[in-house]
Amino acid sequence: MDVIAAANARAAALAPGEPGILRMEVGQPGTGAPRGAAEAAARALRDGHPLGYTEAFGRRPLRERIAARYAAHYGAAVEAARIAVTVGASGAFPLAFLAAFDAGDRVAMAAPYYPPYANILTALGMVPQILPCDASTRFQPTLAMLEALDPRPAGLIVASPCNPAGTMLRPEELAAIARWCHGNGVRLISDEIYHGLSYGVPEATAAAHSPSAIVVNSFSKYFSMTGWRIGWLVLPEDLLRPVERLAQNLFISAPHISQVAAEAAFDCTDELEANRAAYRRSRDLLLAGLPAAGFDRIAEADGAFYIWADVGGLTNDSPAFCARLLAEAGIAATPGVDFDSGRGARFVRFSYCGPEAEMAEAPARLGRWLGTSRNLL
Amino acid sequence: MDVIAAANARAAALAPGEPGILRMEVGQPGTGAPRGAAEAAARALRDGHPLGYTEAFGRRPLRERIAARYAAHYGAAVEAARIAVTVGASGAFPLAFLAAFDAGDRVAMAAPYYPPYANILTALGMVPQILPCDASTRFQPTLAMLEALDPRPAGLIVASPCNPAGTMLRPEELAAIARWCHGNGVRLISDEIYHGLSYGVPEATAAAHSPSAIVVNSFSKYFSMTGWRIGWLVLPEDLLRPVERLAQNLFISAPHISQVAAEAAFDCTDELEANRAAYRRSRDLLLAGLPAAGFDRIAEADGAFYIWADVGGLTNDSPAFCARLLAEAGIAATPGVDFDSGRGARFVRFSYCGPEAEMAEAPARLGRWLGTSRNLL
Repeated sequence: MDVIAAANARAAALAPGEPGILRMEVGQPGTGAPRGAAEAAARALRDGHPLGYTEAFGRRPLRERIAARYAAHYGAAVEAARIAVTVGASGAFPLAFLAAFDAGDRVAMAAPYYPPYANILTALGMVPQILPCDASTRFQPTLAMLEALDPRPAGLIVASPCNPAGTMLRPEELAAIARWCHGNGVRLISDEIYHGLSYGVPEATAAAHSPSAIVVNSFSKYFSMTGWRIGWLVLPEDLLRPVERLAQNLFISAPHISQVAAEAAFDCTDELEANRAAYRRSRDLLLAGLPAAGFDRIAEADGAFYIWADVGGLTNDSPAFCARLLAEAGIAATPGVDFDSGRGARFVRFSYCGPEAEMAEAPARLGRWLGTSRNLL
Repeated sequence: MDVIAAANARAAALAPGEPGILRMEVGQPGTGAPRGAAEAAARALRDGHPLGYTEAFGRRPLRERIAARYAAHYGAAVEAARIAVTVGASGAFPLAFLAAFDAGDRVAMAAPYYPPYANILTALGMVPQILPCDASTRFQPTLAMLEALDPRPAGLIVASPCNPAGTMLRPEELAAIARWCHGNGVRLISDEIYHGLSYGVPEATAAAHSPSAIVVNSFSKYFSMTGWRIGWLVLPEDLLRPVERLAQNLFISAPHISQVAAEAAFDCTDELEANRAAYRRSRDLLLAGLPAAGFDRIAEADGAFYIWADVGGLTNDSPAFCARLLAEAGIAATPGVDFDSGRGARFVRFSYCGPEAEMAEAPARLGRWLGTSRNLL
């Protein structure tokens, strides 16, 4: 948030004719909802739909479209009754954590990680247990790491593709972790919000490999509907009633108009795939250009729209590095400490969900800056 | 929720020609967003607004409109910086509770009460402390009750007008409670979501009487925007940063399109006041008709759209009473046990936010049913 504010301030202070700020810090698509989704929302308004509360788990037709995606996208059978529509993935996590865990429970996750995992757990009285990961495991947890945990944690959060590293678990790795968790009484929470945005590695869902896993997903990334605040959970049978009770109390329902729009988003494949193709082109430009610019230690950019760069050869103070990068090169990026308070001092996250032209310009600008600044770092 | 489901099932099973179900169990306006609000949302969609995340506390113009309402409606000075736009009042409570209280803290509230107060507190590891109230204090807490609490609770929730009783604290009572809480280190949470819907008793805001109180409000009732999931908090200075951090992690932001609509709702006074006038007419019909129908012990119906009837002369099993009322008279109402697990067995909540014609029909139908059923109860 601070990085975005700094980038906004820098952009506002640009002199006339000065080159614009390249925004590589943002974590949301700039594309807006697909046209068909926005049109469905507009139609509901034009028709005078009252848009009152829905059932706590969401409109039945939307839940059925989501369930159908599991068959179409993964070949997995997931009943609509197991889908809970939520107020974004953000609203899904507290429901999942409160239903699955007790205060004091430890919940493991790889580092680097999306900070709200730990912040929400902590706010709810649970205890994040950090598994330090590096490039040797593509910044993902392994079975060996889990086996080594003694005592076992109550839960495990995995994310594939993950934020900030952009890396993925291979399908057989996710399947093995899901089976291990199920067999060992560890509640798996699989964050699949970047599904749909991957570039070669097959996507697998934990729902296909464990009857006890909780899957979190969202319309914010592939479906490009951030501000609509709409996501979903796939729930195991034993948590359906606990999560429903929590949702009735904590949310009543997800926004009605967003549910109408989300249902229509499933029919916008052409536009959504065009968005993905643009991400892929930006990713390819950066993967080709970053090493030449001096950023040659980057994680396998399997998915999402992030590149996780090890800048340990350039700095051991990523916040200072990013501040100079913004001030001197006009490029906003996120210091790794936001995702890994210790080792993140040697990492930077570049996001490529911004305009393609900006991404194309980034490597040359980065290279020029690093060429003149290297000795100072 | 079970009552609504039972009423839906009964309505679906009606024989042709059978009189319809009178819906006096619902807790949401049937009117939908005011026209100007829906039009503002439609305009944003037509203009291709990207509708991404907003700042965690909401769009600045909306926060300013909300702040201005405190000056216009209450003559109270509240800065826009103290307004946090939330995902309904439901989303506001967890933020308030987590910021203000620790696990194990006791938080007092009058009974009968809106069940999510206690359910959310309990889910977050806090402890509801129930203050049994009756008609002698209009089902509201008093200073004497608070003085008697030893040890003092960490917090107090008040609601005026309240759900289910529809009663209000007089302005001087709220002011005294707010001052007492501030002076005694008890965090006051004032639920003001039914403000705008009162029928004679002046509305007061805790924000005018305590710098430490948290005010919860919503666009769901007076502004008639339930399914849009939009509400707000007025925060004391010391909680601004804690709540902002929680909101960034737990919600990111309230739905963007709902924020656009809510801002426009402030310009829809004619339509909203017409809604209120309809509630008032329904209320007057019921206050005139219910005693004649045999429901003569009813709470002072100062506000909201509820009538809290003491049916202890007719039954000591309000769920069974309501089930028969639905099955035999075709009137859906909510048993008091939903709001007060013990004494609620002798109470029923009638909601009058449904269609005016249904409310007008209710007393006669209630009277006929009670006339034929009284000996059976």
